[in-house]
Amino acid sequence: MQGLMMQMPLSISSLIVHAARHYGDVEVVSKRVEGDVHRYTYRDLHARAKRLANALDTLGVASGARIGTLAWNGYRHVETYYGVSGSARVCHTINPRLFPEQIAWIIDDAADQYVFFDATFLGLVEALAPKCPHVKGWVLFADPERMPAASSIPNLLCYETLLAQASADYDWPDFDENAASSLCYTSGTTGNPKGALYSHRSTVLHAFAAALPDGMGLSAHECIVPVVPMFHVNAWGLPYAACLTGCKLVLPGPHLDGKSLYELFEAEGVTMSAGVPTIWLGLLQHVVSQQLKFTSFRRTVIGGSACPPAMIRTFREQFGVEVVHAWGMTELSPLGTLCHLQRKHDALPEAEQQALLAKQGHVLYGVDMRIVGADGEDLPWDGKAFGDLLVRGHWVIGEYFKGRGTEQFSQDAQGRTWFATGDVATIDADAYMQITDRSKDVIKSGGEWISSIDLENLAVSHPAVAEAAVIGARHPKWDERPLLVVVKKPGAELTRDELLHFYEGKVAKWWIPDDVVFVDQLPHTATGKLSKLRLREQLQQYVFPAVKDAAPSR
Amino acid sequence: MQGLMMQMPLSISSLIVHAARHYGDVEVVSKRVEGDVHRYTYRDLHARAKRLANALDTLGVASGARIGTLAWNGYRHVETYYGVSGSARVCHTINPRLFPEQIAWIIDDAADQYVFFDATFLGLVEALAPKCPHVKGWVLFADPERMPAASSIPNLLCYETLLAQASADYDWPDFDENAASSLCYTSGTTGNPKGALYSHRSTVLHAFAAALPDGMGLSAHECIVPVVPMFHVNAWGLPYAACLTGCKLVLPGPHLDGKSLYELFEAEGVTMSAGVPTIWLGLLQHVVSQQLKFTSFRRTVIGGSACPPAMIRTFREQFGVEVVHAWGMTELSPLGTLCHLQRKHDALPEAEQQALLAKQGHVLYGVDMRIVGADGEDLPWDGKAFGDLLVRGHWVIGEYFKGRGTEQFSQDAQGRTWFATGDVATIDADAYMQITDRSKDVIKSGGEWISSIDLENLAVSHPAVAEAAVIGARHPKWDERPLLVVVKKPGAELTRDELLHFYEGKVAKWWIPDDVVFVDQLPHTATGKLSKLRLREQLQQYVFPAVKDAAPSR
Repeated sequence: MQGLMMQMPLSISSLIVHAARHYGDVEVVSKRVEGDVHRYTYRDLHARAKRLANALDTLGVASGARIGTLAWNGYRHVETYYGVSGSARVCHTINPRLFPEQIAWIIDDAADQYVFFDATFLGLVEALAPKCPHVKGWVLFADPERMPAASSIPNLLCYETLLAQASADYDWPDFDENAASSLCYTSGTTGNPKGALYSHRSTVLHAFAAALPDGMGLSAHECIVPVVPMFHVNAWGLPYAACLTGCKLVLPGPHLDGKSLYELFEAEGVTMSAGVPTIWLGLLQHVVSQQLKFTSFRRTVIGGSACPPAMIRTFREQFGVEVVHAWGMTELSPLGTLCHLQRKHDALPEAEQQALLAKQGHVLYGVDMRIVGADGEDLPWDGKAFGDLLVRGHWVIGEYFKGRGTEQFSQDAQGRTWFATGDVATIDADAYMQITDRSKDVIKSGGEWISSIDLENLAVSHPAVAEAAVIGARHPKWDERPLLVVVKKPGAELTRDELLHFYEGKVAKWWIPDDVVFVDQLPHTATGKLSKLRLREQLQQYVFPAVKDAAPSR
Repeated sequence: MQGLMMQMPLSISSLIVHAARHYGDVEVVSKRVEGDVHRYTYRDLHARAKRLANALDTLGVASGARIGTLAWNGYRHVETYYGVSGSARVCHTINPRLFPEQIAWIIDDAADQYVFFDATFLGLVEALAPKCPHVKGWVLFADPERMPAASSIPNLLCYETLLAQASADYDWPDFDENAASSLCYTSGTTGNPKGALYSHRSTVLHAFAAALPDGMGLSAHECIVPVVPMFHVNAWGLPYAACLTGCKLVLPGPHLDGKSLYELFEAEGVTMSAGVPTIWLGLLQHVVSQQLKFTSFRRTVIGGSACPPAMIRTFREQFGVEVVHAWGMTELSPLGTLCHLQRKHDALPEAEQQALLAKQGHVLYGVDMRIVGADGEDLPWDGKAFGDLLVRGHWVIGEYFKGRGTEQFSQDAQGRTWFATGDVATIDADAYMQITDRSKDVIKSGGEWISSIDLENLAVSHPAVAEAAVIGARHPKWDERPLLVVVKKPGAELTRDELLHFYEGKVAKWWIPDDVVFVDQLPHTATGKLSKLRLREQLQQYVFPAVKDAAPSR
């Protein structure tokens, strides 16, 4: 027996229609690449998104075709989110920080028909264009008078001219809510990038969850700034959740230094923001050094990489800003967990609350998770056992674009598909998850696992250590043993044995690295992350100085 | 091109699975019909809901079959919500306050196979059973030792025995998310009741919206009490939203007087509640007369009928309790609008904020609304023009059970279906809606509309008036003119002309009623609402004392 409710698709266009009809006067404010501040309303955004949809019709872009973007957080980029997806095309956000070769590969792999870009990336696009012969045109987010007089870019189009020539009269089509809406490639620290192809349904359900009080807590009473880039998993879904909830949306453009952000937050009355720890470090340094206070800012969601507990504390205690630690992935749209205290935690001492808030947090309805051991069996949720983190949910990919990465999907006994995140984590009895390692970095010593992150955190807490990495090096008896690779601070003196002694009493004896290698620098990826892949390559000939008959006893 | 996201149905069972897995230790507390307080956790609730699903298998209840309930808000009733719907049957909540004839009609119309009921309703069920020959069994929510020694009820079963005999091992089936999940009949002030048949999808989407900050603001940090009955549109969806968000759930049972509620709120640390104005009147009277304060209670959602502005003010100013005025209908699952201030309203003077908070509020994403005039054309959103309120959305019925009430559905120019709510409303420029009348009560005088509610509110503000109703009485020239029907306060003196003069300067001249009829009492429905239907019947022979040649000039 079927229910008798109205049937309508969960569509991205319905989000902007809602915002325009019910929050028509609410502002969308953008710091532009041009240097000025642009402001208009959701009603204006809707009208321009409809113009864009008509312009794409005129350009002959078919339903399902991909449109690339290389752009900062700004109103034109948001128009692309709605105009492209709402008219049944696929909005493909591209990370401009990748190497040009990677970007060209991604544009080709996605078969982008047009690429929309900010003036910042004119030079990049000039380099890309010859490598992307299938792109029919490159659309510069600019007024006609700002178009370059001469350019090597073939079929360079002006965004504002396209919009001016198009009608604002457009009926958003209804179609299957499972249709593809947007595409985002993972940064690809190993091998070629893999694409996550989101649907309208997954995007709308994710926006609902993101707006929940135990999500990012969005309402028409908030003024939000997605500092996290719109080329990075759709700015964590905030441009969608903003239309769903009617909050004022402030888009910071390219300048994400502490001073620029602080001034923007104060000028626009920003209440809530979201971004990676590096950004908040810059903001905190600015406000601390200048002895400033926040007038309206009171909550920030921090994810992308683990947030240092000291940052959470400083925000809370010194500035009255609540920090919501979060964890996600491109493959999860991206929200997996957020860390909020529950009712029962109100009674905990401050230190225990802090320890809890340092965890990556709790799933929202719509996502489920498991941790499994090497044999694939579920591990206990005791906050101690750590294993591979598997997830499933409405906004988790069921497969990668073009069927890549099949090894990351598995079926459980009930035939349900789970996605292996590549993270290693604990889950406690209240279902709070904490990442302990990346699966490929965890050290498998004699069938037991050792967390490389724990050992690295201890190493950098030594006053003579500037940077440290721990990798598993091959060992004839134990398969792998931890090898500590260290960059000393300039002028600091430190020996192998001093550093290994430093671990004693701080971790289980059998976790202590077997050796230390001092280096001048550690390899990093294009996005600044430590590249353990390249470190392992550099050290693949490494042999432990004296392979012992027995590793330290358990 | 299809997105590549995991596919899983939006199912009611996924809500309880989520609560049990991720909020397993959170409490569900019930004041029982038995008089005591029962407490267990979401994990326990899940286990018992699975037992119920197995018990229904044993009873041979087919997928899609209806199971009726006649019960207060309590844990066994919640188990029925999940056990029945989760196993693909339809949970049919019945309002025990209706006349027995109506209840029997509804049970027969729905073809309920079994009816689960609280001991309170033993007498009622004894009266119903002979009139419901198709019901296969009546299941009493009780322990075996509390079963009646003798009863005229055929096939009377014990709920706890059924559960004890069933296994807690059950895999919730996956099925179409558009399958029927639950059934609720409108109270039916005109004609026979009509059923709203909800789906799993509509219920889950409604729960998402209900939990939003601009909805009811639910999280694992809250402790909620649905005072609104679970037989009344699924307690406004709170038992579902509670599992979605992991809040502590407190169920008040049958005792909803001010003292009982206050003691429950204090004992359990309740932070948020929801119910009709009458309930809050009782609670306020108790706390004011006893000079009490609330320790934890800080937000209440008030709907079902218009909330008096004075109540909103008292809660806010005297007790620090935020009142969220809300509007909904059985046909809307029920949430249509809730009234929260937006960012721009922070700057308004208190009186203007109060005026805004007295409105029924703003739609949540997922529902859209229009107001139309007699010609079906859209009226302006200026807060003044009032017309028939039409809605559409994910949790709005597309048709009534068995295809009744087709006249309430219409198509717009784009072929989209809208449901006529039967309410008359204004919508302002910020999309806040305010009910001004019921469509059938609005007075159509010479092609213009007059709000009966406005005239009634003025009448009861006269010190000598106890209760008042305004209906449209037939008029040869103007079609209808307002007729005021009044119950005077005991011992009060008041003449027709005094009362009509009282309106002067307070409403447009042509709105002033043409006559006053004094009566000893006004007719009410079974649920205590003023019955204008019966009043119109009583006064159908009424003729204005001197039918004037011209009504008062406009």
